[in-house]
Amino acid sequence: MDFTPDPKTEHLREQLLEFMDSHVYPAEPVFHEQAAAAENRWDRPPIMAELTREARRRGLWNLFLPDPRYGPGLSHAQYAPLAEITGRSPLIAPEALNCAAPDTGNMELLAIAATEQQRQDWLQPLLDGRIRSAFCMTEPEVASSDATNISTRIVPDGDGFTITGRKWWSTGALAPQCELLIVMGVTDPDAPAHRRQSIVLVPRDTPGVEVLRGLDVFGFDDGAHGGHAEIVFDGARIPAENLLGERGGGFALAQARLGPGRIHHCMRLIGMAERALELMCDRANRRVAFGKPLADQGVVRHWIAESRVRIEQLRLLTLKAAWMMDTVGAKAARTEISAIKIAAPGTAEWIIDKAVQVHGGAGVSQDLPLAMLWAQARYLRLADGPDEVHRDAVARRELAAR
Amino acid sequence: MDFTPDPKTEHLREQLLEFMDSHVYPAEPVFHEQAAAAENRWDRPPIMAELTREARRRGLWNLFLPDPRYGPGLSHAQYAPLAEITGRSPLIAPEALNCAAPDTGNMELLAIAATEQQRQDWLQPLLDGRIRSAFCMTEPEVASSDATNISTRIVPDGDGFTITGRKWWSTGALAPQCELLIVMGVTDPDAPAHRRQSIVLVPRDTPGVEVLRGLDVFGFDDGAHGGHAEIVFDGARIPAENLLGERGGGFALAQARLGPGRIHHCMRLIGMAERALELMCDRANRRVAFGKPLADQGVVRHWIAESRVRIEQLRLLTLKAAWMMDTVGAKAARTEISAIKIAAPGTAEWIIDKAVQVHGGAGVSQDLPLAMLWAQARYLRLADGPDEVHRDAVARRELAAR
Amino acid sequence: MDFTPDPKTEHLREQLLEFMDSHVYPAEPVFHEQAAAAENRWDRPPIMAELTREARRRGLWNLFLPDPRYGPGLSHAQYAPLAEITGRSPLIAPEALNCAAPDTGNMELLAIAATEQQRQDWLQPLLDGRIRSAFCMTEPEVASSDATNISTRIVPDGDGFTITGRKWWSTGALAPQCELLIVMGVTDPDAPAHRRQSIVLVPRDTPGVEVLRGLDVFGFDDGAHGGHAEIVFDGARIPAENLLGERGGGFALAQARLGPGRIHHCMRLIGMAERALELMCDRANRRVAFGKPLADQGVVRHWIAESRVRIEQLRLLTLKAAWMMDTVGAKAARTEISAIKIAAPGTAEWIIDKAVQVHGGAGVSQDLPLAMLWAQARYLRLADGPDEVHRDAVARRELAAR
Amino acid sequence: MDFTPDPKTEHLREQLLEFMDSHVYPAEPVFHEQAAAAENRWDRPPIMAELTREARRRGLWNLFLPDPRYGPGLSHAQYAPLAEITGRSPLIAPEALNCAAPDTGNMELLAIAATEQQRQDWLQPLLDGRIRSAFCMTEPEVASSDATNISTRIVPDGDGFTITGRKWWSTGALAPQCELLIVMGVTDPDAPAHRRQSIVLVPRDTPGVEVLRGLDVFGFDDGAHGGHAEIVFDGARIPAENLLGERGGGFALAQARLGPGRIHHCMRLIGMAERALELMCDRANRRVAFGKPLADQGVVRHWIAESRVRIEQLRLLTLKAAWMMDTVGAKAARTEISAIKIAAPGTAEWIIDKAVQVHGGAGVSQDLPLAMLWAQARYLRLADGPDEVHRDAVARRELAAR
Repeated sequence: MDFTPDPKTEHLREQLLEFMDSHVYPAEPVFHEQAAAAENRWDRPPIMAELTREARRRGLWNLFLPDPRYGPGLSHAQYAPLAEITGRSPLIAPEALNCAAPDTGNMELLAIAATEQQRQDWLQPLLDGRIRSAFCMTEPEVASSDATNISTRIVPDGDGFTITGRKWWSTGALAPQCELLIVMGVTDPDAPAHRRQSIVLVPRDTPGVEVLRGLDVFGFDDGAHGGHAEIVFDGARIPAENLLGERGGGFALAQARLGPGRIHHCMRLIGMAERALELMCDRANRRVAFGKPLADQGVVRHWIAESRVRIEQLRLLTLKAAWMMDTVGAKAARTEISAIKIAAPGTAEWIIDKAVQVHGGAGVSQDLPLAMLWAQARYLRLADGPDEVHRDAVARRELAAR
Repeated sequence: MDFTPDPKTEHLREQLLEFMDSHVYPAEPVFHEQAAAAENRWDRPPIMAELTREARRRGLWNLFLPDPRYGPGLSHAQYAPLAEITGRSPLIAPEALNCAAPDTGNMELLAIAATEQQRQDWLQPLLDGRIRSAFCMTEPEVASSDATNISTRIVPDGDGFTITGRKWWSTGALAPQCELLIVMGVTDPDAPAHRRQSIVLVPRDTPGVEVLRGLDVFGFDDGAHGGHAEIVFDGARIPAENLLGERGGGFALAQARLGPGRIHHCMRLIGMAERALELMCDRANRRVAFGKPLADQGVVRHWIAESRVRIEQLRLLTLKAAWMMDTVGAKAARTEISAIKIAAPGTAEWIIDKAVQVHGGAGVSQDLPLAMLWAQARYLRLADGPDEVHRDAVARRELAAR
Repeated sequence: MDFTPDPKTEHLREQLLEFMDSHVYPAEPVFHEQAAAAENRWDRPPIMAELTREARRRGLWNLFLPDPRYGPGLSHAQYAPLAEITGRSPLIAPEALNCAAPDTGNMELLAIAATEQQRQDWLQPLLDGRIRSAFCMTEPEVASSDATNISTRIVPDGDGFTITGRKWWSTGALAPQCELLIVMGVTDPDAPAHRRQSIVLVPRDTPGVEVLRGLDVFGFDDGAHGGHAEIVFDGARIPAENLLGERGGGFALAQARLGPGRIHHCMRLIGMAERALELMCDRANRRVAFGKPLADQGVVRHWIAESRVRIEQLRLLTLKAAWMMDTVGAKAARTEISAIKIAAPGTAEWIIDKAVQVHGGAGVSQDLPLAMLWAQARYLRLADGPDEVHRDAVARRELAAR
Repeated sequence: MDFTPDPKTEHLREQLLEFMDSHVYPAEPVFHEQAAAAENRWDRPPIMAELTREARRRGLWNLFLPDPRYGPGLSHAQYAPLAEITGRSPLIAPEALNCAAPDTGNMELLAIAATEQQRQDWLQPLLDGRIRSAFCMTEPEVASSDATNISTRIVPDGDGFTITGRKWWSTGALAPQCELLIVMGVTDPDAPAHRRQSIVLVPRDTPGVEVLRGLDVFGFDDGAHGGHAEIVFDGARIPAENLLGERGGGFALAQARLGPGRIHHCMRLIGMAERALELMCDRANRRVAFGKPLADQGVVRHWIAESRVRIEQLRLLTLKAAWMMDTVGAKAARTEISAIKIAAPGTAEWIIDKAVQVHGGAGVSQDLPLAMLWAQARYLRLADGPDEVHRDAVARRELAAR
């Protein structure tokens, strides 16, 4: 057992911290001004183009991809402390580094399962940050945390497939740059439950695809990130070569995609929590009420200490889950992955809530990132499987082990 | 001790419940469509005019005012169960009945302290729902939960006053109908700490008053209610007769205004919690996941039971605080008022959070009222004094009693 | 709705408070010394005889029994504030007033269902405080929160019954004064599930009854109250006239017994919480750490305020449940009864825990009543049905109402 | 960062697990029977002698001492997983391995600061398990979490010292084997606050030392471990050579003693939590209520999952704190040490509470170790500095870092 950080990570960490200070934090007010002023609320603020250019120039690009063909080839454990830092400015830093969900998961999926042609057509543009993509899995009509409920049909039809169904929470799909929808649906309704689904690549401009509207998250439309779309597939037709991986392999692919995705979310949540704690301490040191700084109020100190205690524990478990992904694989790490998926959003939510409280009215407003951070953390108690599903999985394994 | 409901209240309750079913709930989707389609995001959706007309016709009007000159003359305890019901649709029902904050508190203030001329100019139009008003107390630069920190200056100047300062969280001030700002500031900086402040009536169109912008509450701008404004007073001049009550009496008036206001908020929060619980149960009964309805999942049942247990306790304490306001007055009831101010937002927030979780993605979105309800409840952990200030007051009295 | 206390209750309250000050609190150290010095750890400390004599002389006797034949005939709502006061010294005051569980529930049962002979033989001595009794329901081998699981057999046998089975948590059964065991068991195994059980009266000295041992509650044996016994019935034989009520009516009788019993426990828990809060405040006012009294530490103040807020809510719900028992009956009040059964032990436990923490080492020790109060509160999260069973019942009704 | 366990630790772990299975768990019922039957309740059950002999024979002895002169020379990180295992049977395993508090801390202190003669007289007998010792620091009259409050006087007197004062919570001091009291008191009242105290070695049979009584922890007297004593020093005289370390160095020595002690407690608490979780799962798998095993109840599964999630996080932080003690020292690790001191007792308490609840009445009784485990965990929220003091220290450093 050795808690010494890895030198390669340390080096990148320093570079990334410098980039945060010199470029990302200063870009925050600009980003929000540009987003507010945008004619199309789903547009990406222009400052993002500058940031991506600069990040790529510095080699801070595609850090998330373990595959050395497509990036620096960091292990999950090496990437973790970097992803955490990007979480400190979650609307800007991840995308500036081409490390933002859902593109990261989509690139991983393509890196694993795509044909050469698919790589050329979709993976390379994504790796270059030239296009964006969405993952269409969740459906409004069914409890999608159980993927066997998915009801969208992908019907073999001549030398292609016809897609019919309704998806929502397809994050990023409203962005003008989003050209690719990766869609999971049922191709083989009579196969065993986990062999019924396939995943297909659907250009967003395919006839029969209608992006209906954006969904809000506690009042935030996440417009500058392409929002969260509801999409109708009404007989949309794609050629056979747009099948990703094998037919009937959709469930397994979706699971494979989720493992690293959950870890990335958790890493970023730790950064979000650290940012909130930092803001809480700054405010507590500066603000005076009833004759003394908030920093001298016992309850505020209690919150600060608890925040530190919880973050330290959560970070170590996240690092361990990442290390297990690297060393024994996602399947053997599934208790740890579920554990951080349960712990991280709730911990971040608790800490951000306290930071809001210390800031009073400013905390809930657009003047600080806290309300947005909170909404993201809260949303992640539901996304990629609600807490309850993960708790049930952990309990089942614990009970079976006795 | 007798828990039998009052007959007058029961009668109004039935009428109000009927109005909710026949008019308010059906108006909810219309309200949101109209708000989304409005050119001016601070405009009141046109449906509100129909609703206020109908409510007034039915005698469901100004129920909040104990003063029988201006309404049905209900006691706080009689009004409480009615306010609770309006909380079930908090964006629509309170305003439909002319019982929405901050106008209610402002009307109470005018009913207590206004001159005849002020009543004629401002109270009557408010009672008629012809205009709206805002209360300008909180300031961005100071911890306003301690009202002695207020820094806005109201300087005597010839036969009037000149106002200089910056306010924010002036709810409703962006609405086109808002014609009156009730402003608290320092007139007598050398007086004892609680005699320095006065309250003045400022027409919103007074030169030197600039309504800068709206503040968001977790992504919601509350536009259809006139938002939450930041306002600069840059030498705004008003005549001497716009002083409300006596000079130096501002602190006492503001305190008087807060007592009933806090109770109204708590009553409505109970209605919000009931609405969330109702939605939670409906969803649990209908939604199937992993082979059984959510209603059969132990954790969901736990949430439902806890919600019921917490609501019942909270309602009784709120009723008792209202009854004490009526029988022994706000000062003797201050522990009870602080207690519900502490308990109600947190309880409602907890219940709404669980209802969100049971709904999955839909819960955080604009398709259900839950995210908005949550934001309102969370905001009320800060508004009218944060939890911590009220807890401190309760503790101080408890410790002194030993 | 009227929160004015009842005059009859107020009068008794004053008398009881005087008795607490003059007799009960001074008796606490004596009680513990006598208990520690007793040769038989299940003996009642001699001071109890003085206290019962004095209480009876003052008319503070059998207050719990609504039946006016046997006491002052208080309603549940009238008794509630008195029971709360006895909870402030739960080892002494309830028994001093002949208002201690399990005798209270047993007397209620006999008052409802006993024959004249049974009244003469058992109820009268209990009403006089001459003997004590135990209720034998819970069994070690089955989940007894579901009473249909009870496995003890009460087999008709000539002109009597033979009892075979094992009971535990028969509170009070080890006391030398305990002469009566009220035993629930299966007489009719082939009847419908809720008609299988009967209740019989078993003199403790019946051959075949063996009181095996006492069970501890977190290290406390509750010896001075006759402990919590494990009892084996090995073919114990009783005459037919020892059947209580009708054959097959045991389940219904046991339910009838539990309603008021749960309310009494909750009332006393409020008194326990008040006692703990009082000790917490006293300590906070007196104890200095790191240069200031604990009363000036924000976290301690937070605990004190939260305690007050929770107690006020809980008390009102308990009073309402009692009032409903009186006005609409136990069945219509079952949600309220379950609600207080869920809320009261947890609330008291939380408050007592904080009082312990404020006292440091003294708080966990025998020098203060806090550790004992905590153990009682914790135990009541299990006794008379664990929290989870009551939550499930509340949820079921809530879901069915939609 | 590498989470691979150390091979030396792994080897000892296997040996220790085997010893637990073959000797410790089977000894548990015997231990309790012997303790219950003991004439002197402070006596050590005879089975302990067998266990210590066997443990020593197997080389499972003095594992806690990093100093290779006195044991296997394990680092804190190497010892941590072993201490955790001993926590699974905390009344037996630590003492069987001569790794029980307070002797461990006392041996560390002597290993650091004792003269050769002191080592020969006291350290060696302790290392051999021939005698036991107590640490006398906490006082009833002052808030001892702030060690500068200590009021016991150690007055220079000819060629020795005279001790006057009152100590309590001197764990182990009532055991017949306890021959040494290590006492902290004020030798130099006029020195700077942290240079006033000295530590001296006091044979328990010194005239003027009176061990008054044992203190209970939630009803448990911990008699088989020598209890928790209150001790009066009434002019007890010791020779000058009984000073430990330098005069005025008591505060620094006490701090040095606490670092590893806190880590050991936290390690054992993790083992206690694991034991409780194991019992909870076993019971949930076996016990049927309302027609299905408790393991199928959602709330129980929630508890089990949460327990696993919390334990995993806590263990990693404890290991990191131990690793930091080894690599950068106690001072640099103080935030981490405070963090686990805050997190471990509360986490263990939460888990044990749930295990109790799943067991019903059995859970609170002497038939299972759960009630005792709970009392130990709860006690550790106070011992070695209450949570609040550690939270304050963490917050202070966090605020100062901004």
